[in-house]
Amino acid sequence: MYDLPKNDEISQDLCASLDAADPLAPWRDEFVLPQGITYLDGMSLGALPKAASKKVADVVDHQWGQGLIRSWNTAGWIDAPQRLAAKVAPLIGADADEVVMADSTSVNLFKLLVAALRLRPNRRVILTESNNFPTNIYVASGIERMHGDIEVKLVPQGNFDEALNEDVAVVLLTHVDYKSSQMHDMSNVTRRAHECGALVLWDLSHTAGAMCIDLQGSAADLAVGCGYKYLNGGPGAPAYLFVARHHHGEIDQPITAWMGHARPFDFAIDYAPAQGITQFLSGTPSIVALAAMEASLDIWSQIDLPMIRAKSTAMSELFIRSVEHQLAPSAIQLASPRDETQRGSHVGLCHPQAYAVMQAMIDRGVIGDFREPNLMRFGFAPLYTSFVDAWCAATTLVDVIESRAWDQPRFRQRAAVT
Amino acid sequence: MYDLPKNDEISQDLCASLDAADPLAPWRDEFVLPQGITYLDGMSLGALPKAASKKVADVVDHQWGQGLIRSWNTAGWIDAPQRLAAKVAPLIGADADEVVMADSTSVNLFKLLVAALRLRPNRRVILTESNNFPTNIYVASGIERMHGDIEVKLVPQGNFDEALNEDVAVVLLTHVDYKSSQMHDMSNVTRRAHECGALVLWDLSHTAGAMCIDLQGSAADLAVGCGYKYLNGGPGAPAYLFVARHHHGEIDQPITAWMGHARPFDFAIDYAPAQGITQFLSGTPSIVALAAMEASLDIWSQIDLPMIRAKSTAMSELFIRSVEHQLAPSAIQLASPRDETQRGSHVGLCHPQAYAVMQAMIDRGVIGDFREPNLMRFGFAPLYTSFVDAWCAATTLVDVIESRAWDQPRFRQRAAVT
Repeated sequence: MYDLPKNDEISQDLCASLDAADPLAPWRDEFVLPQGITYLDGMSLGALPKAASKKVADVVDHQWGQGLIRSWNTAGWIDAPQRLAAKVAPLIGADADEVVMADSTSVNLFKLLVAALRLRPNRRVILTESNNFPTNIYVASGIERMHGDIEVKLVPQGNFDEALNEDVAVVLLTHVDYKSSQMHDMSNVTRRAHECGALVLWDLSHTAGAMCIDLQGSAADLAVGCGYKYLNGGPGAPAYLFVARHHHGEIDQPITAWMGHARPFDFAIDYAPAQGITQFLSGTPSIVALAAMEASLDIWSQIDLPMIRAKSTAMSELFIRSVEHQLAPSAIQLASPRDETQRGSHVGLCHPQAYAVMQAMIDRGVIGDFREPNLMRFGFAPLYTSFVDAWCAATTLVDVIESRAWDQPRFRQRAAVT
Repeated sequence: MYDLPKNDEISQDLCASLDAADPLAPWRDEFVLPQGITYLDGMSLGALPKAASKKVADVVDHQWGQGLIRSWNTAGWIDAPQRLAAKVAPLIGADADEVVMADSTSVNLFKLLVAALRLRPNRRVILTESNNFPTNIYVASGIERMHGDIEVKLVPQGNFDEALNEDVAVVLLTHVDYKSSQMHDMSNVTRRAHECGALVLWDLSHTAGAMCIDLQGSAADLAVGCGYKYLNGGPGAPAYLFVARHHHGEIDQPITAWMGHARPFDFAIDYAPAQGITQFLSGTPSIVALAAMEASLDIWSQIDLPMIRAKSTAMSELFIRSVEHQLAPSAIQLASPRDETQRGSHVGLCHPQAYAVMQAMIDRGVIGDFREPNLMRFGFAPLYTSFVDAWCAATTLVDVIESRAWDQPRFRQRAAVT
């Protein structure tokens, strides 16, 4: 469906014709995309769905403003965490009652890591990779600091096999690496961890909404993910967590509060966990934040995921080929797997002046992002990114590097958030 | 300023003249209040500030939609937790750098309880009252379940002196009781706990935005509070937490993640806590939820708190007197202190058919709420509640009870959220 021609045939016109034939192309109109901007940072903050803008206004003005406290019943606020989760579930290969929306990714990760350690009481190691998303390592290390007997063991990327032993309670991995875009083989890793008696906790933040994923088919135990990247739920959107059904009977979590209680409106003194995944809720979620998230998920429910994955790999392949075709190999380094089956939906490129190069690109209206020390990232969000966008980004990158347009003090000046 | 006349002079006209003379009355126009509704449930969900509606739309449509990832820098998203906290601080008698907005009240409570236990490593008891807000007890009991050596000790309301001993690490109290509206003497309680070497953690959820409070003057250690009651930050608004400055050097918290890191954009493997209160941040907050909260806090920064407290007590006093004056003493029972200096900003009344009575009132457009087993609550939010509202609620209550209007099956039928 998204077949690419040979390198020397790739041109803006060719990309325009790929867009014209793209069955996903009409979805671009459902998003707000600023005039003159080529946006390739959807793996950091997804674009605004027009429906999210409308839905948030309705929830604020009508449900909160007019409905007031009554909306907990009349507008379905009380079961929003489960209702939204049911819309996330098909995107990650889970059943609706194995997922819930709650808190932030970090807080959910904390809950599930503690829960995993309690499921394996005779084991004391959280095993993860040193290239894992740093905040995931911070959460694990917070648990290590709190519990004298727990140890966080860091191994180089892909080398956890050697460290797998009977001390390992849980393996904590990010499915698609936030820098390199390297993807783990979920089934294979999970099988190896299980053979040694360990659980696996997957972070799907850079996965969901950009590719096919099958938690159930991979026999996954636990997962978390954020709502604001490819899922387009808005800045700091509510996160989700997954617990495989066969763990529901024995698992518990540390931050027990009213939303996870079996009968919250009894206002009883004793905590009694709700059945199933609902016990993983803690305090009151932001209903306004959930509104934006839900509008976005309602788009996702109409999308064919294999088509998303096919378009994503075609776009990133076209981008890489365009850059490779136009730039000398020494000018820039691909930080991502060349094999598209090993790659997520963003492409990492290394350049010694990556920060300044990215700032010069942004100055020309092409937005990707930078990660220390020398990495540029370009994300391909198949719902609203076009082949012309990919072409435009490659062409701008080549020109900025060849013309040394990045070599200006204003492009080296670091912002607060890089 | 808000002097009430004798009982037999209280009438709707008198209330209208009190409103006409009320210097806070113009603020009512800054809120959305539905036609035909008398809203006395601001202690559960505050009304919508018109500015919050505008601000949310701007953040969604402009900052997210047009600014996209750039808004982390250009729209000040990155320091929103501290910026909003600086606006909460004067409402609770704290300095700006002792407060931060983060997560939910429950998650913040979890962080601070664990932090308090780590500040008192040779003590093992969390002491609280059995009438404390149940979710607070649930959070404490979650910590007890996780750490074999920690014990949650529950004592009857006001009886914690006898239980104070050298095992007590932290006393966890809600400043204004969610049912009775009974207020603790913050200075006195804190002093007694300190004499025994314990810390005190205050829940200000039913306090902030309705009365004067002086955490610093009370030598308070720790506090949490929610944003969606009297602070009007919207359903499930972001919560805040307070840590007295003299604890900043030695305290730490369990949910360590990127927002609390000293240099989050280094993406270093090792966690290094940010200085001061910022280390209490964990994951990414909802920027849309913070937007509604900030618009509301910008109103609060223009408000004189002693005036708020004076109007609140005058309204609740007028409400109680009107009910007492018109109903036989046996018809209903005051669940709140008769002494206004002991009372928060809501009034609790007991009736054997409290649920049905409240439903019949809501049917007539007067919204308060119900708490098991027999309590009705009426909240007086001085920014948008009028004396005529208080009069109308009292008159409607009297009529519903005297006419037995509540005695219909449709009013006994419990909703999902009560």
